[in-house]
Amino acid sequence: MISVVILGAGNVATHLYKAFAKADDVSVVQWYNRSLKSLQTYKNDVDITSDITNLKEADIYILSVSDDAVADLSKQLPFENRLIVHTSGSVNIHDLDKKNMRGVFYPLQTFSKNAEVDFSEVPICIEALEKTSHPILKELAQAIGCKSHRINGDQRASLHLAAVFVNNFANQLYRIAHEITESSGAEFDILKPLIKETARKIEELSPYMAQTGPAKRHDKKTIKKHLSLLENDMHTGIYKLLTKSIQQTHGKKL
Amino acid sequence: MISVVILGAGNVATHLYKAFAKADDVSVVQWYNRSLKSLQTYKNDVDITSDITNLKEADIYILSVSDDAVADLSKQLPFENRLIVHTSGSVNIHDLDKKNMRGVFYPLQTFSKNAEVDFSEVPICIEALEKTSHPILKELAQAIGCKSHRINGDQRASLHLAAVFVNNFANQLYRIAHEITESSGAEFDILKPLIKETARKIEELSPYMAQTGPAKRHDKKTIKKHLSLLENDMHTGIYKLLTKSIQQTHGKKL
Repeated sequence: MISVVILGAGNVATHLYKAFAKADDVSVVQWYNRSLKSLQTYKNDVDITSDITNLKEADIYILSVSDDAVADLSKQLPFENRLIVHTSGSVNIHDLDKKNMRGVFYPLQTFSKNAEVDFSEVPICIEALEKTSHPILKELAQAIGCKSHRINGDQRASLHLAAVFVNNFANQLYRIAHEITESSGAEFDILKPLIKETARKIEELSPYMAQTGPAKRHDKKTIKKHLSLLENDMHTGIYKLLTKSIQQTHGKKL
Repeated sequence: MISVVILGAGNVATHLYKAFAKADDVSVVQWYNRSLKSLQTYKNDVDITSDITNLKEADIYILSVSDDAVADLSKQLPFENRLIVHTSGSVNIHDLDKKNMRGVFYPLQTFSKNAEVDFSEVPICIEALEKTSHPILKELAQAIGCKSHRINGDQRASLHLAAVFVNNFANQLYRIAHEITESSGAEFDILKPLIKETARKIEELSPYMAQTGPAKRHDKKTIKKHLSLLENDMHTGIYKLLTKSIQQTHGKKL
């Protein structure tokens, strides 16, 4: 049985709490937040507190707060030599106060406030300054059905950056597609199977191998037609830049 | 029973042939291609020909050839007043020779040469110059398990353009993420659940509502960190432009 204390009450903290509460091998001994208000819903299920000086003993302290608050919160902890981890993709592990053993437990997934999370689809990136911390962090991930990956700080930084491309930026392309279809009165919904299949294809093929379309084919006629249809300068700029990027990746047509 | 003749032997033609061959209510009476070579595999299952003057009678002639070849092929057809359709997203319906009844049967999906296609996930965009052609084209789509959508030419053009954003361009973002992770020795595979979830989320939320991340939050610190990690000018350009696009879409932080 792994005992944990959760600190913070945001999206990730809440989803982790729910997953831990369901797991047989994890016990949430306490849930801390600066304000008790956001924890009230759970007060009958877990010991809640807003008093940082009053934290219970646990195997792992999970600091799941905003990036800017991690360092400060770790300094305020009233104990030493225990295992503390943050859950951020971009905060340096050394930002955690060194009086404790330090680690990272970074779930690389997008969490919505109200949607259920399927934790079998949440890879956990694990980092630890003390080698001895790895096994228990791996166990904690396994206990909630996650695959875990031991990575270093540079790798986490690059995964966090890459995640912005495949998540935020890909989603913005969906948004642009939404605007383009709406301007002609076409249904955006017609594109949803294609969106799903584009993501699914990556399971079998590398993105390099999966590429198709006018940019890769250097199909100037279609590219010209598309550019003439675009009415928004930002969309035109993105079309041109991503077309160029595809052509850089795939080289000249022979 | 709908009888069809397929003209062309590319990806789309071949996947359509396979779907029609399996369908109870469709009969492929002939398969034409300029060269018989690519049709040899199927010669025991269907009448194949490379002689355009020798086409059999059918309810629908499906011209599934490269965009540039559609107009010419339609002119060569040795009959009139029959229903001919092309399968392209970007060829104007009027490019088909007017001696026949003209339509479009455009499957909006990405087809790989060797992968099986799940036609229940292929929306068919239907266009026809003669009203009377709509029902049989809809029936043909239904016969292979597809949802069909009646659209006009402008809508097809905008869907084809939007498809480039959600398919080719999104895939290029996956490719860039692959390059970024590889440069630090992190596994690209760790990102695959996020890629899938980003596409899945669109089923429930509009892309506008689904957006998260540093660009939307105007999180200058993280954006600066990300820009400092990018080593490739093209990647930097794309990061900046899509960040700007997200901020344009979502407005200023209050």
